[in-house]
Amino acid sequence: MNETLPWHQQATRKIDRAAVARAEERQRMLTKPPGSLGALERLAVRACGWMGDAPAVNRPAVAVFAADHGIAAEGVSAFPQAVTGEMVRNFSAGGAAISVLAGSVGAMLEVVHLGTVNDPGPLPGVVRAHIAPETANFLRGPAMTGDQLEQALAAGRMTVERFVGRGADILACGEMGIGNTTSSTALACAYLGLSPRDVAGPGTGLDAAGVEAKAQVVAGALEFHREGLADPMSVLRRVGGFEIAALTGAFIAAAQSGLPVLVDGFIASAAALAAVRIRPSSGEWMQLSHLSAEPGHALLQAALARETGSPPLLDLGMRLGEGSGAALAIPLVRLALDLHREMATFAEAGVSGADRP
Amino acid sequence: MNETLPWHQQATRKIDRAAVARAEERQRMLTKPPGSLGALERLAVRACGWMGDAPAVNRPAVAVFAADHGIAAEGVSAFPQAVTGEMVRNFSAGGAAISVLAGSVGAMLEVVHLGTVNDPGPLPGVVRAHIAPETANFLRGPAMTGDQLEQALAAGRMTVERFVGRGADILACGEMGIGNTTSSTALACAYLGLSPRDVAGPGTGLDAAGVEAKAQVVAGALEFHREGLADPMSVLRRVGGFEIAALTGAFIAAAQSGLPVLVDGFIASAAALAAVRIRPSSGEWMQLSHLSAEPGHALLQAALARETGSPPLLDLGMRLGEGSGAALAIPLVRLALDLHREMATFAEAGVSGADRP
Repeated sequence: MNETLPWHQQATRKIDRAAVARAEERQRMLTKPPGSLGALERLAVRACGWMGDAPAVNRPAVAVFAADHGIAAEGVSAFPQAVTGEMVRNFSAGGAAISVLAGSVGAMLEVVHLGTVNDPGPLPGVVRAHIAPETANFLRGPAMTGDQLEQALAAGRMTVERFVGRGADILACGEMGIGNTTSSTALACAYLGLSPRDVAGPGTGLDAAGVEAKAQVVAGALEFHREGLADPMSVLRRVGGFEIAALTGAFIAAAQSGLPVLVDGFIASAAALAAVRIRPSSGEWMQLSHLSAEPGHALLQAALARETGSPPLLDLGMRLGEGSGAALAIPLVRLALDLHREMATFAEAGVSGADRP
Repeated sequence: MNETLPWHQQATRKIDRAAVARAEERQRMLTKPPGSLGALERLAVRACGWMGDAPAVNRPAVAVFAADHGIAAEGVSAFPQAVTGEMVRNFSAGGAAISVLAGSVGAMLEVVHLGTVNDPGPLPGVVRAHIAPETANFLRGPAMTGDQLEQALAAGRMTVERFVGRGADILACGEMGIGNTTSSTALACAYLGLSPRDVAGPGTGLDAAGVEAKAQVVAGALEFHREGLADPMSVLRRVGGFEIAALTGAFIAAAQSGLPVLVDGFIASAAALAAVRIRPSSGEWMQLSHLSAEPGHALLQAALARETGSPPLLDLGMRLGEGSGAALAIPLVRLALDLHREMATFAEAGVSGADRP
């Protein structure tokens, strides 16, 4: 711990490189043609760097961060802003996709409410970390104050601390917030130097004219904030969102705690990009879960490939958010690790190796 | 039942089209942007055609058919032929990938031994349906006699009947057999009019010269059998394998019984192609599970797309066989159906719909 640095600049947990090397050797000895389990082998090897020689998913966790966005006033979403608060209630009641998925995969679920324009009030299973009803409209000013950004980052960190305390071994992270693909588009453009037209997509269901208008909103915002986009924290404060910053805080804190995370879709990937810009080694603890139907997602994932070292596990044309793609990947991670631990080696099983290795 | 037709020509169970229509309507009412669950929505809708209005995976099953191939004498595999029998022993002992996967996803597992050059003898969990130690080398004659083909098809059908009796609601199907990518390449070329050079791949790990030699073996076999490739049953008898024909029998019998199947990789897809050539409507009960790393697999899947109506769920660069990709898809199917049954509608949850639908 370096006391002169803020918490999000502190070192992340080191990957166990010796366990990775042993895992690569073990994969070559298991009763299958070398490499024939494809991405599952690479995932198991990575997981040994996180968890040591006998990696397993026994206590998976899912976190969903929810908040509203001032930018919604620009008409950038197909759905009304009230839906964010309504969906927080739906998460709590068990009717949302992520509620069903978390239950079915046996994951602990925490919903973190960072502020919505229609406040659903205290709800079972929802952590109240209320910052404000919404961010400021970032077309005309910074989305957050510095204090608000710190509050949001800390909310993500506290979720990680609670899950670590409950023995979580992997954390799937997602979000809910009407307007947040617009914020994520702005983040992606600012961090990667991309054009809003190349990143903006339909989100929950805009038509072509809506996507074009959204790209123009992002272009206008980037022009307004152009002097403040050099520092990654400043970018997040200016064009991010409460739930996005909470995801960023969760990703950094998870890497500091040695808890691997499954990154959900487009918005979670924008938050992951913020995390690796703030604390590059946090990417070592991230696994991309799925390629979303949102067209800009592939660009974000390509930018994350260097830090995370791996492509996403799934490509199912999903674009829901809520952590749904990340939760769906939990069984795949579990099975990859079960295979690594439990398969017999050629020697154990008395199976012949290749004639022509 | 038409008494003048053999069993594999009998009608398949009808899809419940009314349930499909109701499922499409329900998907539009669930609390998510329409279409945002991508392939999971389409899968759930298909499953309602198989299972009715409340589809669920409660009792999944996995079948692995194993047999040896006379064509192995042509040096078409990186592994020695003894491995097939050794792997049957490994399946039984729980050390193979499919043993681990079936256990972890909670599936019933049946291994069907149709004949191997080194006979492992009776083993727990292995059904003995021994036809011969191996097929004949199809470079110089038909792989099977007519009786042997009927025995192999019937072995697949009996597996389905046993699983239906045990209440299975979905069946993942795979295989093991050194040399069987060569047989599958010949089947694909014969059914689809493709060139062996466009379909042959490394299988368990051939180098480029090995792949070229394999393509030449297949080309030679297709030339030898050219007069006998018009009828789909004749193709299967001449260049198929015992375990491939058993898969074909299982796919047809499953469709007749109304049991949906998950088709594994390259070899299982060749067997599925045989099934839809023999009994086209059997494709309505098939779900492709994954795109294998074997380069010819995409061609086979494209040819199956018309009958099965859906792309594969996973693309993880796997090329192991054994039903491993199909077993890996079981949790995804289960979750897609859980979402369909358990998510709340907009009305139930009091969530607003789109402003701009």
